[in-house]
Amino acid sequence: MLRRSRAVWIAGVLLVIAAASLPAWAAGPADPLPSWRDGPARRSILRFVSAVTKPGSPDFVPPAERIATFDNDGTLMAEKPYHFQLHFVAERIRELAPQHPEWKEEQPFKAVLEGNVPVIADIALPDLEKLVLAASAGTSEKEYTEAIERFLVHAENPELGFPFTKTVYRPMLELLAYLRARGFKIFICSAAGPEMIRTFSEKVYGIARENVIGSDMMMRFELEGKEPMLMREPRFVPPTNDRGGKPINIERTLGRSPILAFGNSDGDIEMLEFTAYSGRPHLGLLLRHDDAEREYAYDEGAEQAFAQAPARGWIVVGMKESFRRVFSTPLPRP
Amino acid sequence: MLRRSRAVWIAGVLLVIAAASLPAWAAGPADPLPSWRDGPARRSILRFVSAVTKPGSPDFVPPAERIATFDNDGTLMAEKPYHFQLHFVAERIRELAPQHPEWKEEQPFKAVLEGNVPVIADIALPDLEKLVLAASAGTSEKEYTEAIERFLVHAENPELGFPFTKTVYRPMLELLAYLRARGFKIFICSAAGPEMIRTFSEKVYGIARENVIGSDMMMRFELEGKEPMLMREPRFVPPTNDRGGKPINIERTLGRSPILAFGNSDGDIEMLEFTAYSGRPHLGLLLRHDDAEREYAYDEGAEQAFAQAPARGWIVVGMKESFRRVFSTPLPRP
Repeated sequence: MLRRSRAVWIAGVLLVIAAASLPAWAAGPADPLPSWRDGPARRSILRFVSAVTKPGSPDFVPPAERIATFDNDGTLMAEKPYHFQLHFVAERIRELAPQHPEWKEEQPFKAVLEGNVPVIADIALPDLEKLVLAASAGTSEKEYTEAIERFLVHAENPELGFPFTKTVYRPMLELLAYLRARGFKIFICSAAGPEMIRTFSEKVYGIARENVIGSDMMMRFELEGKEPMLMREPRFVPPTNDRGGKPINIERTLGRSPILAFGNSDGDIEMLEFTAYSGRPHLGLLLRHDDAEREYAYDEGAEQAFAQAPARGWIVVGMKESFRRVFSTPLPRP
Repeated sequence: MLRRSRAVWIAGVLLVIAAASLPAWAAGPADPLPSWRDGPARRSILRFVSAVTKPGSPDFVPPAERIATFDNDGTLMAEKPYHFQLHFVAERIRELAPQHPEWKEEQPFKAVLEGNVPVIADIALPDLEKLVLAASAGTSEKEYTEAIERFLVHAENPELGFPFTKTVYRPMLELLAYLRARGFKIFICSAAGPEMIRTFSEKVYGIARENVIGSDMMMRFELEGKEPMLMREPRFVPPTNDRGGKPINIERTLGRSPILAFGNSDGDIEMLEFTAYSGRPHLGLLLRHDDAEREYAYDEGAEQAFAQAPARGWIVVGMKESFRRVFSTPLPRP
């Protein structure tokens, strides 16, 4: 008995020593996507990334060309009941309302001042642009950015009940980290104003300010004494960053096309099509909001994208079956 | 005699052994700017970089904010007798001329077709834009880029007698490498088309395609069957990247302002002013072409910049006194 237990003890010690001296690879890599459930979406991502990053693979893509572009609203973070830029703009409109008595009777201002969520949530793009322009005209870029930063400190998603910057999807954060670790350069490509997303992209996503592409507003450069100033002008720099504007602005800004693109709506169709531009292996992904329990269930605004997905080989990622966990924050839905 | 020479020999061996075993730092760091002559310009660069990169220094700037922007033509590479984009455009105009008999009588086309260098070299911006638009209208982005690449293989600067991509300044290449090693993110900010500079920026400057900001042309996205296409349209995306357009496009693209900017003409004034935007320590530099012997001597187009330099604290870098060597290539001027 004594002998045997001593032998076991010695074997145990030897095992511990052996394990401690094993090289890191022998333990197997940690799961890079723990919040993703095993399934076709997760597997297609792992397979693609492995193929394009393995030296000697026929699908190998050199790091300089490993460009990944992500839509923001509804892809990296919740966009319902309406997205955070509109929420911010509505707050600015309410602040500016005393100087604009005519807004009480004029849409879309009227809906904003009355807090009419259904109307605001269904706003058409020209009306949204009208609000964005009204909210920022005559402001300097610095003032505007500071107003966004103040807003993000106190503002919460009115339905989810936690801060906008916490409504990001944990599986997407893991995907960003995984791609980054495999040498991808990651860019956000959003219809929103880039100055909005830049206020939190580094902290929340680990994506540098300069890696955010969005709908730019025209600016004016001037000097106040010796102080350089950028004033926002009431018009957009064409093209706004939606639909066909996305590939154009990606090409303009990067001089490259993505080999991986992730979107969630018809506004992302052309960005996904653009993954085929370089002739490299490519992957298009679409997040489907089908989880009324944990987030939202809606296909509106994404019908064309889902209809085209099978023929184009785009992977539809159903939130319900693909995400083990949805939000990065553990806060429950109220 | 024998004894003494033996002692010398032994001392010599010991010295060699001692030198070989010295740690690297003991030799002092290698000179990061060997092609720069000691003088105020070199010293101001070394002093600035040291101040903003030294942890604990009151002037320390975190790496994320160490943005440096460089003009291209006349700053990183020679722009005389006229710059390589105009040279390329002229070649395209000559190719397209048979389809445009009217160009024989119409300026600026006439001058291009006649090879009238003085007129071409003095071309006004609206005429240059007319040529650029004529040279690229109706072309796809891919075709256009391929044409640039073909051009750069055979084209030489007609006066210097060696390829355009060899007319880059060696001291500037050293400065780029030095800044990169000290954690700077380097961007080119040029009035030229970014697609021009991107064809060689990685190979020649070590600057990634996505770090080139220029005057963008509008594009159109379309599908040819399943093939995504970008077609160039005959207009610029505002603002073109000159004068006040430079800070605007830097802010739009990066969401940041540079702490170091290097230019050579009045077109760079606002970019240099913009270094004061963040409130961080900043350095503005202007290359002065005062070396008719080794390059060119001209102040035209830079008079305002030089006039403002002393009051703004911008460093004027005279090529003659600051550059120990001018070009990256050892080829002599013909």
